Amino acid sequence: MNSLSGFKPVSLIATVNKAGQPNLAIFSNIVHLGADPALIGFINRPKEAAPHTIRNIEETGFYTINHILPAFVEKAHQTSAKYADGVNEFDTVGLTAVHKDGFSVPYVAESRVQMALSLSEIIPLSNGTFLVVGALEHAYVNEQSVASDGFIELSKEGSIVSSGLDAYYTTKPLQRFTYAKADQPLTEVAF
Amino acid sequence: MNSLSGFKPVSLIATVNKAGQPNLAIFSNIVHLGADPALIGFINRPKEAAPHTIRNIEETGFYTINHILPAFVEKAHQTSAKYADGVNEFDTVGLTAVHKDGFSVPYVAESRVQMALSLSEIIPLSNGTFLVVGALEHAYVNEQSVASDGFIELSKEGSIVSSGLDAYYTTKPLQRFTYAKADQPLTEVAF
Repeated sequence: MNSLSGFKPVSLIATVNKAGQPNLAIFSNIVHLGADPALIGFINRPKEAAPHTIRNIEETGFYTINHILPAFVEKAHQTSAKYADGVNEFDTVGLTAVHKDGFSVPYVAESRVQMALSLSEIIPLSNGTFLVVGALEHAYVNEQSVASDGFIELSKEGSIVSSGLDAYYTTKPLQRFTYAKADQPLTEVAF
Repeated sequence: MNSLSGFKPVSLIATVNKAGQPNLAIFSNIVHLGADPALIGFINRPKEAAPHTIRNIEETGFYTINHILPAFVEKAHQTSAKYADGVNEFDTVGLTAVHKDGFSVPYVAESRVQMALSLSEIIPLSNGTFLVVGALEHAYVNEQSVASDGFIELSKEGSIVSSGLDAYYTTKPLQRFTYAKADQPLTEVAF
């Protein structure tokens, strides 16, 4: 069942608790909700199973989302272990917490696509999970990786995807097309 | 902004209206919500922008999700054009509607991972979009592609991912790991 919905945009979500102690955990059920306003959602499992990230977000209102590269996929997967409350997974798995521009939550320094979000709403779903909706506050990407139309070629950035509970994949450009219209054939666009 | 959330599990969603007329449209904001019960969500844009799929689901309660292969990615992208209400995109773009096991909505015959869903709930989000939650009723995958632990190696199935509004990618296995535990090192698992 965990494979059926398709590949997933896996990322590391960093938070801090009320005392400022960082937490880092891997999340794969992330979903783009809209560009204007810029909203991103992720699914947090029931609080008994995954308590720290959602509690920290409820307490502080802020978090960061950081894409995962092949170079640190093993460390990223290790953050899925059930660590005791208050354990700083940055230190435990060996990733670097970096603060930028006064945002209260650190980013993963090793990541090449980093986002800061402020909590917009938390929606409880019927199965005990939560849709956590965040508004984009900051985004850091290599400037040269952003095309004139805003497109970011994520395979060049090294961003990976996941499948099921434990499998990770790299990606390769296949095709890019023009905006589809009912009365016109598609044209391919270069990556 | 459309690239930031990461790669997306793009699929074709088929519905029928009250009169039984099929509709087919590409959706990339799909999210696994849970395995037990098996729930999958997708984001439907505001009804003014994308009216047909959500209306058909509200009217009939059923839909299918079909993974996209490189061989028909151009046809799949073409379904994003704004066709008039009642247009059957299966016919218009040249894909084959196939019925299975008495389910009221057709599948995309060319797809290798096909799912039937019944509507569980539709949750309006603050930006005018909707989280459509469906319960898995049927799933069709090549039996030989399902490992003994239930894992489906989706790159072998040819399932693609998308990025931004118009870019499609294939995937390649990177690494698979054991279940992470706080007090044990990870071990790699073969794909």
